[in-house]
Order: sequence, then structure tokens, then C-alpha cells
Amino acid sequence: MVTLKQLAKELNVSISTVSKALNNSEEIGEATIKRVKELAELYNYKPNKVALSLKQNKTKTIGVIIPNILNRFLAKVLFGIEREANKHGYNIITCISNESLKKEKEGLQLLASGSVDGFILSVAEETQITNEVEHFKKTINQGLPIVMFDRVAHDVMCDKVIVDDFDATYNATQLLFGENRKKIAFISCINDLSVGKLRERGYNKAILEHKNQEPLVLKIKKKDDHQKKIKSFFKKNPGIDAVLAADSSSGIIALNTAVNLGLKVPKDISVIAFASKSDSNHTLPQLTTIRQHAKTIGETAAQLLIQRMHNTPASDDVKTNIIKTSLVKTKSIL
Amino acid sequence: MVTLKQLAKELNVSISTVSKALNNSEEIGEATIKRVKELAELYNYKPNKVALSLKQNKTKTIGVIIPNILNRFLAKVLFGIEREANKHGYNIITCISNESLKKEKEGLQLLASGSVDGFILSVAEETQITNEVEHFKKTINQGLPIVMFDRVAHDVMCDKVIVDDFDATYNATQLLFGENRKKIAFISCINDLSVGKLRERGYNKAILEHKNQEPLVLKIKKKDDHQKKIKSFFKKNPGIDAVLAADSSSGIIALNTAVNLGLKVPKDISVIAFASKSDSNHTLPQLTTIRQHAKTIGETAAQLLIQRMHNTPASDDVKTNIIKTSLVKTKSIL
Repeated sequence: MVTLKQLAKELNVSISTVSKALNNSEEIGEATIKRVKELAELYNYKPNKVALSLKQNKTKTIGVIIPNILNRFLAKVLFGIEREANKHGYNIITCISNESLKKEKEGLQLLASGSVDGFILSVAEETQITNEVEHFKKTINQGLPIVMFDRVAHDVMCDKVIVDDFDATYNATQLLFGENRKKIAFISCINDLSVGKLRERGYNKAILEHKNQEPLVLKIKKKDDHQKKIKSFFKKNPGIDAVLAADSSSGIIALNTAVNLGLKVPKDISVIAFASKSDSNHTLPQLTTIRQHAKTIGETAAQLLIQRMHNTPASDDVKTNIIKTSLVKTKSIL
Repeated sequence: MVTLKQLAKELNVSISTVSKALNNSEEIGEATIKRVKELAELYNYKPNKVALSLKQNKTKTIGVIIPNILNRFLAKVLFGIEREANKHGYNIITCISNESLKKEKEGLQLLASGSVDGFILSVAEETQITNEVEHFKKTINQGLPIVMFDRVAHDVMCDKVIVDDFDATYNATQLLFGENRKKIAFISCINDLSVGKLRERGYNKAILEHKNQEPLVLKIKKKDDHQKKIKSFFKKNPGIDAVLAADSSSGIIALNTAVNLGLKVPKDISVIAFASKSDSNHTLPQLTTIRQHAKTIGETAAQLLIQRMHNTPASDDVKTNIIKTSLVKTKSIL
């Protein structure tokens, strides 16, 4: 394994210059930074952990990169991160990747140059599709730990906080079978997200384990008229006696539409949806919800990162914490 | 007016040192920075605009400080800022003040030290209450322009983007009078926010202009059971034939509760609420909504800031843009 000293010798500069260049110090010219980084990359240089722990310029700031600020779940996770970070005297600064790999990389670079001590992030959709992970690995090698949550890159060795989406829909479907429901439909507005696909798979697995049942799935696109789609879905598939919704909007509209069509909830039809407490108030009767505990996810991610940042020299073991969903039963199921 | 040169002379250091110290350069020791800043403050030093325009270290980054990430309106404004900033090649980094004056100050300081070229922000609740504005003025004097949106500090000379909340509820109430409604109620979950109070005042003004009508207001607290509160409000005040809601949740629950109580919408009762397009799908019939155009607010704020940052030497005139709400009529009103 190559050391700072060897890099310095080969480049004919001081060790301090190499170190500063690797940390993007303003004192070092751009050309030198480029030269040092290229050689370090060529030799796959990894910073010495003890040396890193001696690094003094702690910013007491955590960088957070989230894919989409309009996603209520992500906004709540961010809230949880913020609250926990503050408890420990950390500030957070946030970049939004807008589901773009390029913007995710830019955000990492922007904050990695001296602004933050570590990162908490959820992977952008484009990054998930292209499966590119080098930018994460480089950041970690640079001495900045990363904690990933919800949408994680399995090929990156780092701490992770994930949700049991698959189990949640599998269990909820089983619960509806327990009510002796004969025609359980799955409705989703979020099928383009990995988490939406995971929820559908949990439902499918439970359905396929039962004889005489087949998956009955409605996928709604963003540009669709949600109310019309759901109403015509009910009409085309008479006898639906349970709905499991992958998101709050699908669940709320499904329940309100069922009532509008003259069905009694929960006598004729049960409805369960991934949703928050406040969403459950948007139907009468109140919606039975699968809660993701977004704030807990954020808090856990912040705790993991802070532990990692204080762990000197850092341990190589990485942790994956699973935050279990919980089902909050109301009068929308039997 | 004191110049850099005079400060340098009095402190017996170079002009360059004073300039770097005022910009929190890493090259300058903390003690020197403190000494320089104290004297600059004592003399109320204001950076020369032409000199500022020559400042080369543009970060091409905009700092955004928002009070509450769980507020959907603010999240959407942030989305609009992001989109517009990107179009012009700017990144954004965000700090959350959590409605705290202290955190707002920290966020400004954190990002002002070399991370951003300017700020877009909405003022924290605590800042509004205490009416403290020195931290904004200092940031602007430091050469970092600020654009405020929605919740603005009127005592700070800077560009602003605001919403016509008062007019929106005034006009909506007038519209309900036009339907010959006799008992128009106002329901709000956001009465603790300045914008909630403004909306109530618009409603009150319209009501008080009509003989034989008195304000009928339900204020719901966060910890309340929203559904119960609204149901008992309807029962205690028989004959309510119109509801104007200050927020989406109040509007959705009010409409669903009216239906549940056997009222026909809009024959027996009209409902209008501040809400987004997707919220309007959470009721049957769809909810008539007052749209705030949050994304437009964000885009306008970003445009104002970018213009201001490119304006060399800067003009002293400040602009206030008012983004008008629009009422999107559906079948929840006559």
C-alpha cells in the first residue's frame, strides 16, 4: 500500500503538499492538486486512518444529499437527521440531487471540499439505474464517511439504514387474507421508484402463495388523472374487497372513491396505505396506515454517522440498521 | 466612510490581510480575523461595491435558509429555487433554521464564510417575533446579497418575493358571498404562522363588510384530533353553507366531513382551501383550491438573486415581487 511519503517522493514535492492537495487546500495550485490526485488514484492511495484522526479541521457539519425535496418521506428523514445532529452539536447542510447522478456527484464534491465532516444520503434514481458507485467510494477514501438510507448502493461498504418495505406489504397482504378478503388490489403512484417496486413485490409474493388469487395491480403515472384512473379501475374489476396502496395519495383516493361508489368501509372493502398520521385524517373512516418512521430513520442515520466520525481509528465493520414499519389499525379494516 | 486602507493602517497590517480577514480566509489567523472584524464593525465598514465586483472567488453557489422542511409550501419553493438556479449554472446548498433565530444566524454564518455568493431565505418564526434583523444586514454589508420570500423582514433593504395571502382570502370570501352563502366559516390549522394570521384577516375584512354576517372561525392546534374538532364544529354551528380553509388539511377534512354528515357538495355547502393540485384529489368532489405557485415564488427569488449578483456595480434599488395566488374552481363550489 502506497503512503503519503512515497507519493511525495515520486512527485518531488513535500508530504505536506501532497496531504493538502488531497484535501483540496486553497494553498495549493490547481495543477498540483490535479497531479497529486492522479497519482494517488493510479496507486489507489488510501489515507492512513490514524493520520486522518489527527486531522484537525473538523467542521462539525454534516452534509446531506437527498434526491427529491418534494418527497414527503425524504423531507421527514431530513427533519430527523437535523434534530439528531443538533442534539450532538452538528449543523447540517443539504444538497438536492434531483434524481440526477451528475448533480449527486456535484453535491458530494461541493461539500467534500472542506465544508463537512461526513455525509448522509439517499441514492439518486439515475445512480441506481446506472449502478455507478465510484463517487461514493472516492468520498469515503478521502476520509469522509457516508451513511446511506432508504435507497442504498449495496456495492459500497458503508453504514446503512433501510426500511423493510418488502415485508411491510407482504405482511399487510397476509393481514387482508386473514380478513378473508377474496380480491385484494394493489394501487401505486410510485412504481418508478425502487421502493415502489419493492412494495409491489411484497404484495405479489403474498398473493402468489394463495391459491385462487392473482395479482391485481393498478399503476398510476404522474400525469394521469388519479381519481378517474381509480374509479374506472373499481368499475372494471367488480368485487374488489381490499386495497393495499403503495403511497398515501392512492390510499386516500381509493377509500374516498369506494365510499363515493356506495361501498361500506370496512364492511365491503378494507383499505391500507403507506401514509403518515396526518394523511390518515384525509378519509372517513380514518385510513389504516403503514408508517415508515421517517424521522427515526433520519435520527438513526445521524447517530451512525456521528459514531463513525468519533470512532478513532475507525473500525472497518459497517452496520446496516433496519427500521421496521408499523401498521396503525383504524376503522378502514375489519 | 472608512476604507480598507484606513482599517489596514490603524491595525498595522496589509490591506490584503484586512480583506482576507473580512472574508474569513483560512490563510489568516483567528486572532487577526477577530481584531479586523471588531474594528470594521466599530467603524461600520461597508465593502466598496466596485472592489466587491472584482472579488474573484465566485462559488457559483446559492445558500438557501428555510424555516421548516416539513412545510410543503417551503419544500416546493426550494424545488423552484433549485430548478431556476441550475438553469443558470448555480448549485444550491440549504440550511434549515427550524424556526429558530439562533439556527438562522448559524446557517448564515456557516454558509457566508466562503461557501456561497448570496442567499435566498424565509424568515424564522422566532426572528419574526423578536424582530431581530442585524444578522441579515451584516450579511448584506459583507457583500452577500439576500432575497427574502414569503416571510420577509420589512426593515431589511433587500429584494423580496411575497404572496398576496390577504387578498386571496378576501377575494375567496367575496366569491362565496356571490354564491349567496349565509354562513361562511373559516378553518385553520396554521394560526401560529404569520401567513395564517394574514389569511384570517382577509376573511375577516370581507365578512365585516357584509351586514348580518359575523366571523365564524375554527382554529385547530397541532395536537388536536382534526377530524373530531371539525365534526363538532359543524354540529355546534348548524347551517354552515361555506368553508374557507387556510390550509389543505382543514379543507380536505371539512369537505369529507360535510359529505359524511349527509350534506351535498356544492348544493348545500361550498368548500375552498389553500392547497396544491394533488391535494384537490383527496376529496370527492375535487376541492376548489387557492394555489400559491410555490415553484414560481422560488424561481422568481432565484432570478432576483442572480440578477443582483451579476449587477456590477450593484444598484441600490430593491424590488418586491408579488406572486398572485389563483383560484382553481372545481365542483366543490357552485
